[in-house]
Amino acid sequence: MTKPCIICVAITGSVPQKSDNPAVPITVEEQIESTHEAFEAGAAIVHAHVRKDDGTPTSDPERFARLKEGIEKHCPGMIIQFSTGGRSGAGKERGAMLSLRPDMASLAVGSNNFPTRVYENPPDLVDWLAAEMLKFDVKPEIEAFDLSHIFQAVKMSEEGKLKKPLYIQFVMGVKNAMPVDREVFDFYRRTVARLAPDAEWCAAGIGAGQIVVNEWCVTTGGHCRT
Amino acid sequence: MTKPCIICVAITGSVPQKSDNPAVPITVEEQIESTHEAFEAGAAIVHAHVRKDDGTPTSDPERFARLKEGIEKHCPGMIIQFSTGGRSGAGKERGAMLSLRPDMASLAVGSNNFPTRVYENPPDLVDWLAAEMLKFDVKPEIEAFDLSHIFQAVKMSEEGKLKKPLYIQFVMGVKNAMPVDREVFDFYRRTVARLAPDAEWCAAGIGAGQIVVNEWCVTTGGHCRT
Ligand SMILES: [Zn+2]
Ligand SMILES: [Zn+2]
Ligand SMILES: [Zn+2]
Ligand SMILES: [Zn+2]
Repeated sequence: MTKPCIICVAITGSVPQKSDNPAVPITVEEQIESTHEAFEAGAAIVHAHVRKDDGTPTSDPERFARLKEGIEKHCPGMIIQFSTGGRSGAGKERGAMLSLRPDMASLAVGSNNFPTRVYENPPDLVDWLAAEMLKFDVKPEIEAFDLSHIFQAVKMSEEGKLKKPLYIQFVMGVKNAMPVDREVFDFYRRTVARLAPDAEWCAAGIGAGQIVVNEWCVTTGGHCRT
Repeated sequence: MTKPCIICVAITGSVPQKSDNPAVPITVEEQIESTHEAFEAGAAIVHAHVRKDDGTPTSDPERFARLKEGIEKHCPGMIIQFSTGGRSGAGKERGAMLSLRPDMASLAVGSNNFPTRVYENPPDLVDWLAAEMLKFDVKPEIEAFDLSHIFQAVKMSEEGKLKKPLYIQFVMGVKNAMPVDREVFDFYRRTVARLAPDAEWCAAGIGAGQIVVNEWCVTTGGHCRT
């Protein structure tokens, strides 16, 4: 038997708006239905952001609570992963929903540039988010925007700051961060295998790189973010 | 004949104080003498930071001007590289000394974590520093604290934002950034050779990693930072 590939659906992200694509699910109800469709199509994890009524991103725990409740009802057994990403809030706001005890939450362990700004994940905030995840028994998905983030995740794991085994996502294709590059993808895989042989990994190609990165994952034993 | 190895002496950096080591040159006069000694010992480039009277780092152009004048007098022909690093100032302050037209200046093209904070190099500041260096005919030394910084430097070079050919320094051993790792060092070298075959590179191991990284550089065709 071959190894199963876990498909994680990111139904919205934090950037696209209805004005970009009317199909983008913005309200909690739309997000629940969109997740339900992906669940029926085979997605095992939902990576969730929530939005304010005007479509802009937020870390509002009340919205995350309603989303979680709806997904649990419509998609029994689906793994729920909340984003703690920096576009949706600043500082500890980003972890305010962790007390809802989602199965997983995303965790950036380093900083990098984004298209127009610095994606700021200062060491003390990273440690605080990791500690909250341990406290509420939330499994982190490490968002590796660069190579050193893999090393940092391994170090934190060895220090007992993260639930084991590691689950690492390689993020490629964000402007001013790591581009979609096959040699780097292969080096990421080899680095994970060398430093954390029991870790699982997946990869996300942003925008135009999505399908090509999905293919790389499926053919090399990784998991997928859609 | 074998390829010459350029030795770059970083006489002070921005962190160590007299209280750490009484030999750390702090005043402009001490820095000139320290550079002179390194020059006589074979260093071809001096990587320079300046300090306030209390030893803390600054980007003060007046101090950089005195330092440049002294080095030009005591070390004729030595290549002078000013640091535009973020420990010595914020925002455009960091480039205030570029109008002095040093031969080179350091340029971080991405952001990353440092031991206790984010090393912030937002895209617009990076572009501004690069444009100032073009304007004043200053050759940048790219400070690559992570793998994506090499890609970013190549992209900026292809866009005509940097004086060619690229000169890239791999920085390893800063806590919360890239550790000293031989596999990564080799992948950095291969990546530079693949993306920018005419580039030159060097590497710096911070603190305890210095000698080992120097040895890697000397034996693989790179240049050295002491
Ligand atoms: Zn996300
Ligand atoms: Zn439904
Ligand atoms: Zn420096
Ligand atoms: Zn002298």
